[in-house]
Amino acid sequence: MRMREFKLIERASKIFSIQRDDIIVAAGEHDAAIVKIGNRSVVLTTDNLHEKADFPESMLPEEVGHMALAVNLSDLAACGAKPLHFLYTITIREGIDDEFFERILYGMQKLAKKYDVAVVGGDIDFGDELYISGFAVGVVDRIVTQANARIGDRVYLTGLLGKAQLSLEQLFSGMDREEIAYPQSLFTPEPKVVEGIEIAKHANSMTDISDSLAVSLNLIAKKSNVSIVLNGDLIPLEHLTEFVSLNKALELFLYAGGDYELVYTSKEKSYGFEIGEVVEGEGVWIKKGDKISRVEFRGYSHM
Amino acid sequence: MRMREFKLIERASKIFSIQRDDIIVAAGEHDAAIVKIGNRSVVLTTDNLHEKADFPESMLPEEVGHMALAVNLSDLAACGAKPLHFLYTITIREGIDDEFFERILYGMQKLAKKYDVAVVGGDIDFGDELYISGFAVGVVDRIVTQANARIGDRVYLTGLLGKAQLSLEQLFSGMDREEIAYPQSLFTPEPKVVEGIEIAKHANSMTDISDSLAVSLNLIAKKSNVSIVLNGDLIPLEHLTEFVSLNKALELFLYAGGDYELVYTSKEKSYGFEIGEVVEGEGVWIKKGDKISRVEFRGYSHM
Repeated sequence: MRMREFKLIERASKIFSIQRDDIIVAAGEHDAAIVKIGNRSVVLTTDNLHEKADFPESMLPEEVGHMALAVNLSDLAACGAKPLHFLYTITIREGIDDEFFERILYGMQKLAKKYDVAVVGGDIDFGDELYISGFAVGVVDRIVTQANARIGDRVYLTGLLGKAQLSLEQLFSGMDREEIAYPQSLFTPEPKVVEGIEIAKHANSMTDISDSLAVSLNLIAKKSNVSIVLNGDLIPLEHLTEFVSLNKALELFLYAGGDYELVYTSKEKSYGFEIGEVVEGEGVWIKKGDKISRVEFRGYSHM
Repeated sequence: MRMREFKLIERASKIFSIQRDDIIVAAGEHDAAIVKIGNRSVVLTTDNLHEKADFPESMLPEEVGHMALAVNLSDLAACGAKPLHFLYTITIREGIDDEFFERILYGMQKLAKKYDVAVVGGDIDFGDELYISGFAVGVVDRIVTQANARIGDRVYLTGLLGKAQLSLEQLFSGMDREEIAYPQSLFTPEPKVVEGIEIAKHANSMTDISDSLAVSLNLIAKKSNVSIVLNGDLIPLEHLTEFVSLNKALELFLYAGGDYELVYTSKEKSYGFEIGEVVEGEGVWIKKGDKISRVEFRGYSHM
């Protein structure tokens, strides 16, 4: 769990706290900031990746470029924003030649084209480690954040979880990238851009799975002053129990990050499947038969 | 000279080349990208700084935060944009405690307040070196780039150059930060935000001094298909000759970076002083008495 990160983000939110008409959702309150520019609601987000923390050794340069854009697009998707523009900074280390650099950009551009994102700027410098920061700009028509889940909403998830972390652990255990269960989840995760835009038309709250489903739902519950109860019978684990025990599978599903899915609460469903409901109270819980247990506020980043 | 950087930026511009109605000025063409969002022309820019390349050892954390915002505001100023929003990513290394981190943010926030910039987002992670990337968003009414200098324009500069590099060299020669000539130029340079907004109302071309006056003017000359001739008699060097030889002073004025001034070409002057004129031809030249010599396309980043 990145507890220090959460603490520092909270400090930062206080330091940069601002009341201004054009700031709809500010730093630290959601996956991205939402501001008013002219006649549009604009979503701004930034994410930083670096080699030692975020890129498995066997990751191809095209996948590094894909990832740098994908994490930012996922933040926009979490707001239901249509992505428009992207900028990056890249720090190149010794051993990264011009070809490697270009392959990173080709990977970025391939994903950008898919979602009609214009890569309009960048900054290049040189250092000891490969760093890529991304900055994405999008627009929304209807504002959906983590803060408005309503009693009686159902909780929906756009896809299966735990695949990225399972694959990473397989990689660490010595498997080749060809042997792991879900290489695409680990190396070229797909941000749920199209889904996010549709879901934002009806959802009361939404976020993406950055750290874990547990963190995402706890944030929604806390910011919306509600409780969320997951129905254990609705949680699909077959894609994991094929490889690990049932206990481990549930742990991965609830507490692993890196899967780029969206979770939302709504009175209706457009994408995904139901996993629980919003009720009065506090915290996040999982119910299986007669047993109810707390879903803790923790997760692990995927490396 | 950061020749590899320029080459890679050129490659990136080709890879990300895009024709789209909302892209007014794209990657690699100017100090920042200019895009249309709704009814506004929005300026987007990003700059990356890291410890080993950009922060002298004696730099205070507040100054690190100031610098991270200032470089980005200078890019906006180069477009005459009114800055609105800022986001950052920061990588914290071992030895940076919570207090150091907060002091960085306080330095950032102090400068942000001065120019009414809302810091609306950030991303925090952990690594081996202190990295800060910044992303700034602004708006412009009239588009001014490096590309439209006109024959007959005068060339104006908003302030004295060479101060940051002189101070850095003094620091490297063993002086304390209290002893160097222009500590403010080195540690808390002031982006020319107010000046940029005014100048953009009438200038035909404008840019900031990132690498050097020589690089800035060569870019304007090349992109505008004109020649620029500096008048050696109009170039103020007293602030440098107080400390170094006349030759070294001219070298610093023309080829050193880090001073955050703006250079522009226009038929009229709002801020600064005249240093030359725009004529037919190519390249940048300096005339002193009967002697005319070429101002080369080179500069040095300030560390």
